[in-house]
Amino acid sequence: MGIVLGPNRYGKAETRVVRVSRGADGTHALTDLNVSVALSGDLEDTHLTGDNAHVLPTDTQKNTVYAFAKQHGIASPEAFGLLLARHFTASQETITGARVEIEEYPWNRLGPHSFSRDGSLVRTASVEVSGATETVFGGLAGLTLLNSTDSEFSGFIRDGYTTLAETSDRILATAVDARWRFAAPEAEFNAVFSAARDAMIDAFTGTYSYSLQQTLFAMGEAVLEACPDLTEVRLRLPNKHHFVVDCTPFGLDATPEVFHADDRPYGLIEGTVVRED
Amino acid sequence: MGIVLGPNRYGKAETRVVRVSRGADGTHALTDLNVSVALSGDLEDTHLTGDNAHVLPTDTQKNTVYAFAKQHGIASPEAFGLLLARHFTASQETITGARVEIEEYPWNRLGPHSFSRDGSLVRTASVEVSGATETVFGGLAGLTLLNSTDSEFSGFIRDGYTTLAETSDRILATAVDARWRFAAPEAEFNAVFSAARDAMIDAFTGTYSYSLQQTLFAMGEAVLEACPDLTEVRLRLPNKHHFVVDCTPFGLDATPEVFHADDRPYGLIEGTVVRED
Amino acid sequence: MGIVLGPNRYGKAETRVVRVSRGADGTHALTDLNVSVALSGDLEDTHLTGDNAHVLPTDTQKNTVYAFAKQHGIASPEAFGLLLARHFTASQETITGARVEIEEYPWNRLGPHSFSRDGSLVRTASVEVSGATETVFGGLAGLTLLNSTDSEFSGFIRDGYTTLAETSDRILATAVDARWRFAAPEAEFNAVFSAARDAMIDAFTGTYSYSLQQTLFAMGEAVLEACPDLTEVRLRLPNKHHFVVDCTPFGLDATPEVFHADDRPYGLIEGTVVRED
Amino acid sequence: MGIVLGPNRYGKAETRVVRVSRGADGTHALTDLNVSVALSGDLEDTHLTGDNAHVLPTDTQKNTVYAFAKQHGIASPEAFGLLLARHFTASQETITGARVEIEEYPWNRLGPHSFSRDGSLVRTASVEVSGATETVFGGLAGLTLLNSTDSEFSGFIRDGYTTLAETSDRILATAVDARWRFAAPEAEFNAVFSAARDAMIDAFTGTYSYSLQQTLFAMGEAVLEACPDLTEVRLRLPNKHHFVVDCTPFGLDATPEVFHADDRPYGLIEGTVVRED
Repeated sequence: MGIVLGPNRYGKAETRVVRVSRGADGTHALTDLNVSVALSGDLEDTHLTGDNAHVLPTDTQKNTVYAFAKQHGIASPEAFGLLLARHFTASQETITGARVEIEEYPWNRLGPHSFSRDGSLVRTASVEVSGATETVFGGLAGLTLLNSTDSEFSGFIRDGYTTLAETSDRILATAVDARWRFAAPEAEFNAVFSAARDAMIDAFTGTYSYSLQQTLFAMGEAVLEACPDLTEVRLRLPNKHHFVVDCTPFGLDATPEVFHADDRPYGLIEGTVVRED
Repeated sequence: MGIVLGPNRYGKAETRVVRVSRGADGTHALTDLNVSVALSGDLEDTHLTGDNAHVLPTDTQKNTVYAFAKQHGIASPEAFGLLLARHFTASQETITGARVEIEEYPWNRLGPHSFSRDGSLVRTASVEVSGATETVFGGLAGLTLLNSTDSEFSGFIRDGYTTLAETSDRILATAVDARWRFAAPEAEFNAVFSAARDAMIDAFTGTYSYSLQQTLFAMGEAVLEACPDLTEVRLRLPNKHHFVVDCTPFGLDATPEVFHADDRPYGLIEGTVVRED
Repeated sequence: MGIVLGPNRYGKAETRVVRVSRGADGTHALTDLNVSVALSGDLEDTHLTGDNAHVLPTDTQKNTVYAFAKQHGIASPEAFGLLLARHFTASQETITGARVEIEEYPWNRLGPHSFSRDGSLVRTASVEVSGATETVFGGLAGLTLLNSTDSEFSGFIRDGYTTLAETSDRILATAVDARWRFAAPEAEFNAVFSAARDAMIDAFTGTYSYSLQQTLFAMGEAVLEACPDLTEVRLRLPNKHHFVVDCTPFGLDATPEVFHADDRPYGLIEGTVVRED
Repeated sequence: MGIVLGPNRYGKAETRVVRVSRGADGTHALTDLNVSVALSGDLEDTHLTGDNAHVLPTDTQKNTVYAFAKQHGIASPEAFGLLLARHFTASQETITGARVEIEEYPWNRLGPHSFSRDGSLVRTASVEVSGATETVFGGLAGLTLLNSTDSEFSGFIRDGYTTLAETSDRILATAVDARWRFAAPEAEFNAVFSAARDAMIDAFTGTYSYSLQQTLFAMGEAVLEACPDLTEVRLRLPNKHHFVVDCTPFGLDATPEVFHADDRPYGLIEGTVVRED
């Protein structure tokens, strides 16, 4: 019996790389990423004795992110993650696994070389290469959606701690955090992103909701129906509570028109929707 | 000689009120505000003895925000702030000053009662009523703009602590924080907001910049030219540094295509542009 | 082949409960928690049809947190999490799993009923009850430690993207995020917390470090040696880079005395230290 | 009538400098600052034409912060701010004003060269040099204090929007943000900091409070009584609401023992306490 090293990895997190591509006609394109790399492999020595012979410095990982952005451009966060993860595992025998997680901040074009940041969401990608296995997730975070009606909540369990009233008309609001898994490490990643995002928005908007769980499943189902390249969608949906303010003490009517947008606590609904084989 | 009370105020900060207006045809409108109230007046007693006879509780201020949203609707953050500030100073003799600061979070319409939050900026308003004087500011925060060329920086002072090289081509990026003062407490507040925002964006995009100060002045000037109701624009522009990454050690060319988006430190340019009388 | 529901759970996140215990002698004790509950079980209906017959509302979960704090007090975050998780799985047949995650914010005593918040760290606990299996983790987050010398980094892999110089004297700083697993769901949780925290601090301080990985292993090993009730420690250590500023261009000597504390990117070292059976 | 430049300034914000001082006996001292510089003067040209002949680059300002930390050490944030502000205004004829704002993050000693960050507060300083006038503020932020009793709130104004009940026993909690003005630009800055901090804590703890305003004045008065070098204290005290949770629906007694720590909205009490001449 003794004390030993278990699972471990290390890397450079949050390298903020901006790539400008200068077109022949003076039009620029802009890609803005936050790249986090984590490597694993034969790393016992550095943990046990501080021998770094198997350690590719996180500073080198950062340089590689910059150099690859320069040399290869950034076709999509998924493709860029694959390039990096394959490089790290292929170039050093002792590195057997690489995970690259990327946030992409979208910008809207204002002119040939002018842009404004689009704060409506963050696009995400997560690539894992482990031996011969390559796993690719796309996704998004922070997409905040709200239906001001067509949402009910009733028929739930009541126990000795239940004080909530049933409601047939409430605001339903959430900040979508979604990750979708690709069946294979190649696809039209950008087209899938747009299709998945649009499918989720349409499903949220179009679902008359009896629970946020029902809306979650409808959103995941819509993504899989729209995107045959995907096998699975993981959704994490906070229920951003908007509580009706009772204004009748102030001599006003009871129509629910004024709400308090609360911070905490909040409901949190997490679920996976999968395509069966 | 003694120790006395100086300037003071108190209020309820960050009341998060969402107003839904239900049209006859089933179409909803949504307004999402963060309202902070601060009152001043004859408040010596509560400070010196804890006698609260002159204190309108911050809880009551919060209720008033909700009730006014219900009763009057929210035509604009400026108009809503004026309603509130006038109410507080008019309704209690001992309250002689009221400042109302509002953030409005814009939402985009997805359907008759569906919305997605527009994260591109926050609209702001600040209203101060003090006796017969009413001061109104509109503004915005967080509008992030970037030009990927047409920006230089040279000809500056060099002293013994200067190591910066001159540059004739750099990325210029900022997150605009602007406040504009209205000549009088009535105006087409929403139209002014749109015109001022557009004027700033056009000026940022259209200015070949030798310094962020020059861009700041061009933006403020454009706002005043577009909006005759305004007398002054205060701008606070962080210089969000994007440093070229030198990829020549990796065998790549020197064209500036890859940048590190740095967090701190950052330049901060603050200036006011005023209309002379 | 079809589209089906995969793994899922739901609950109330971030219930901020403060418990005051009033001693007979007028001395108060204070416990300040942030409690997140997630339940799983037979939840297909709410996802597929919006039938909520198996849903214990997140509002009820919140009420339960408050009621249990009142009725049972809070002996430790681990014990409180166990109480809650056991209650949720025992009280409803359709709830088969419960995970309770808790942050505890420590306060220092200033007087019999006066306290100041101790911002040095957040204590954490995570309890999972699934059928007959009960898993308990304790931990902490945000404990920021720094050695201003006795840290080297050299002997690492060099490839075509390596520009980092070897160093025999650097600042080593991190913000410790640790989770330790208990062998069984009962222990002197508070005593283990203190012993584990102290062991980590001593190991960080006392290790002459050739890599942050080496320090990580030393910290995990020290925890397991100090706490026989624990079987495993998971550590997540950002390398908070402090870069020497070269002041020789300003006519000053090269002794490394002034550092830039950088924000991003940062190294991130993650590892588990386990007790072998 | 025309559009002209009004008040303006520019500088480098948030330079994160860490100074290590190495004692002859191997004991290190650590100072951790966040320094923001803002300069003003004859800056019309850069705003109107982009001529930067009067602009000391913000990059040079950053270098100066590092070089001064190296050359002079950091006796206190106030003294370091004075050194910098005097340098900027003395060294360039066109720079007539300098404001230096500093946050200091305290660390606790763990060993001769080991430290843990003390998260209980941030020390602050603000120095302004304008021509011959030198103004120095010290202060602190984020000091979170709580009394679990000895706080009432009653006797306040009631109007048509008032629903708040009077209370004779509540939790009073705040996060102190204080700035104190020195009578002259020299003093035992570190001793004053300790004395002012302790006086505020003692006054908060020792005051039976009928309003947070009363507590604010008591805190400011205590600082001025303890520190003859100070002429004024500005306090900004959020009322961090802790609402009693009513557990009687769950069959529990009504003793106020469980509280919800709310995020927003919050009361905000701001006041200045001054020494009369």
